[in-house]
Amino acid sequence: MVKIAVLGYGVVGSGTVEVFYKNKESLEKKAGQELDIKYILDIRDFDDSPYKDKFVKDFDIILNDPEVTVIAEVIGGLKFSYPYVKSALEAGKSVVTSNKELVAAKGAELLAIAKEKNVNFFFEASVGGGIPVIKPIHTCLEANEIDEIAGILNGTTNFILTKMIRDGMGFDEALKIAQDLGYAERDPSADVDGHDTCRKICILASLAFGKHVYPENVHTEGITKVTLEDVNYCDSCDCKIKLIGCAKREENGEISIGVFPAVIRDESQLAGVNDVFNAILVRGDATGDVVFYGKGAGKLPTASAVVSDIVSAAKHQNTSISLTWKDSEQTFVRSFDKFSCANYIRFAATDKAAAEAVIKAEFSGVEYLSRNNMPDNELAFIADVMDENSVNAALEKLSAHGEVLGRIRALDY
Amino acid sequence: MVKIAVLGYGVVGSGTVEVFYKNKESLEKKAGQELDIKYILDIRDFDDSPYKDKFVKDFDIILNDPEVTVIAEVIGGLKFSYPYVKSALEAGKSVVTSNKELVAAKGAELLAIAKEKNVNFFFEASVGGGIPVIKPIHTCLEANEIDEIAGILNGTTNFILTKMIRDGMGFDEALKIAQDLGYAERDPSADVDGHDTCRKICILASLAFGKHVYPENVHTEGITKVTLEDVNYCDSCDCKIKLIGCAKREENGEISIGVFPAVIRDESQLAGVNDVFNAILVRGDATGDVVFYGKGAGKLPTASAVVSDIVSAAKHQNTSISLTWKDSEQTFVRSFDKFSCANYIRFAATDKAAAEAVIKAEFSGVEYLSRNNMPDNELAFIADVMDENSVNAALEKLSAHGEVLGRIRALDY
Repeated sequence: MVKIAVLGYGVVGSGTVEVFYKNKESLEKKAGQELDIKYILDIRDFDDSPYKDKFVKDFDIILNDPEVTVIAEVIGGLKFSYPYVKSALEAGKSVVTSNKELVAAKGAELLAIAKEKNVNFFFEASVGGGIPVIKPIHTCLEANEIDEIAGILNGTTNFILTKMIRDGMGFDEALKIAQDLGYAERDPSADVDGHDTCRKICILASLAFGKHVYPENVHTEGITKVTLEDVNYCDSCDCKIKLIGCAKREENGEISIGVFPAVIRDESQLAGVNDVFNAILVRGDATGDVVFYGKGAGKLPTASAVVSDIVSAAKHQNTSISLTWKDSEQTFVRSFDKFSCANYIRFAATDKAAAEAVIKAEFSGVEYLSRNNMPDNELAFIADVMDENSVNAALEKLSAHGEVLGRIRALDY
Repeated sequence: MVKIAVLGYGVVGSGTVEVFYKNKESLEKKAGQELDIKYILDIRDFDDSPYKDKFVKDFDIILNDPEVTVIAEVIGGLKFSYPYVKSALEAGKSVVTSNKELVAAKGAELLAIAKEKNVNFFFEASVGGGIPVIKPIHTCLEANEIDEIAGILNGTTNFILTKMIRDGMGFDEALKIAQDLGYAERDPSADVDGHDTCRKICILASLAFGKHVYPENVHTEGITKVTLEDVNYCDSCDCKIKLIGCAKREENGEISIGVFPAVIRDESQLAGVNDVFNAILVRGDATGDVVFYGKGAGKLPTASAVVSDIVSAAKHQNTSISLTWKDSEQTFVRSFDKFSCANYIRFAATDKAAAEAVIKAEFSGVEYLSRNNMPDNELAFIADVMDENSVNAALEKLSAHGEVLGRIRALDY
């Protein structure tokens, strides 16, 4: 019998308990042994819950109970989760978590403790909610060298962009609907400013390239500057704007990584990912492009990933099969100044002829775009691949003849 | 040190050896031990191969060598592979295979032997080539009850349909290009008649529902009757025609399963899967729809899945972690007469008014379609969900007033 503790009884925590008891019998068959949840940690009271006898308020009860060998941390944040998870692993208990902030900030350290203590630290639910992606990359694509990984990793921003693209709705209005539907928080900054996506691409990049990438080293932009005009221009050239987190192995062993809104061709498997759905594209040297698609958040999808990790942890007691990546100086993270990609630019010219001359001189492969009700002095175009420094220098020259209204990187996935 | 034998040095076999030696160092790290290929079985001579010392022509050398604990079977077919794999498992060796025919025909038996002998039988490469799907369903979606599974599982037919849809090319011409490019065999029947898709959906259904479904019990239609006219009508209502294998859990515990060309709405994640790509949609009760996309065939993608299974087998020696499903009477496979779905119908009327009256009486939710150069006496429509018996009865009544030129089932994925 494997005894489990669930830390936190919020949305994911209550979903975890629900999915666990709903499928208990089949889960036990898959784990090859009996399973039960012994404790649920929450500071609140749940006197009406059918599980009310399991609730405790003191983590030490769980930590000091040798019967508990698997802990599911679904509190979120770092304040409580980090010391709880660290001490649990140090006490020789396996931990599974849905907490991307924890894994992105402390993954290397926690994985090392798990390895040392011969227990497991699993976090399938931390990226892509219910989409299997961490374990498949780790165990199915291991015969590949992963060259690139890119994803639509945040459902809230993808919902907002989908509303803008499909319904011609402005950002503020789309955000309000997302909030009304419970997809976006009252303070939506973690989503719309790209921080949530940043944590997830850090986890994926650490996994794919074997070295921990910390969020503070990743160039991160959100979607708040994307306008309906940008959406319309991109529509005119069969492209969509998506918030993308991407990481790429460069030839010298460095990693290029960033989070930003990106123009994506309609043929891309990422362009058709709409509403709150997520998708992760993995480019392997043997397998080519593989894409994992599904619901990236939500109570039951995320809980199902947590419960699946609980079963894996129960099945592999006394063997550390969780992955590892190294902690290391962030010198392998290439400066974002050197990031290279194509670009979409929108410009309001004071002197149109002069602006066009600068564009001709500074950019190559320029394709001009148009939209309905396009002002006479507006210019919009997509230009070939350039690095950030060159783009910034070109835009500065262009600014002598008007105002840069928008610039969105264009990616080729 | 784990010693491996590769049975068969064709496309997948030589790819397996290539990927293995290319990534040997990282694979050993992942397996936690040294690995080497000791034998390659092939009746042909490969005197110029760098691996020429490993070639043997007699399977018994491999079978009787106790050093060999993992065997990769990539011969294909049943004639040699079935006795080889069976005797290898019985001798206590783990087996990995890319052979869908073997798994679809003998999976339950071979899995039972593996379990009994405490070894593993893995077959990630048998469905979806390089796309991780078998292991993710088995180990990541285990907290779900899988309700439905559907996929574009054959790259050759998807390439042909993509040519018809995108380039307005007829079936014969598209098939010829597929043959010239090496995507289709000289005798293309296993692909275009749906048999390859049938084997794959049988494997997926057996895995998802826990009972072996045999190909001979699955209604299977290919794409040879799909016309450009059908493609055009479907385009007019924002749909695509794809060859789909699908299986669904019914309320009474039966399984509905079939292989046929299907009309799919453009918004579906399956509609945008083009050329030789494959995609598998899994509908779980907790996670909702999850889609796995990538190259479903080809030397290196398939080989990478075989090599990944080799590493898993090496890592889990002396523990049987491979899945199981039961062999059982096929009474749980629902008669295809009861299969229910929407339908696209194309009809050449001798008496148009009479035909329209029959359509009105026999079908519901009829949406008439049109195309360029549509003959006056032609009728095309999509109608609401009906079971096979009702559709066949309605089409028979309709036939009194002309000829049914086409009928394609419409699915809602």
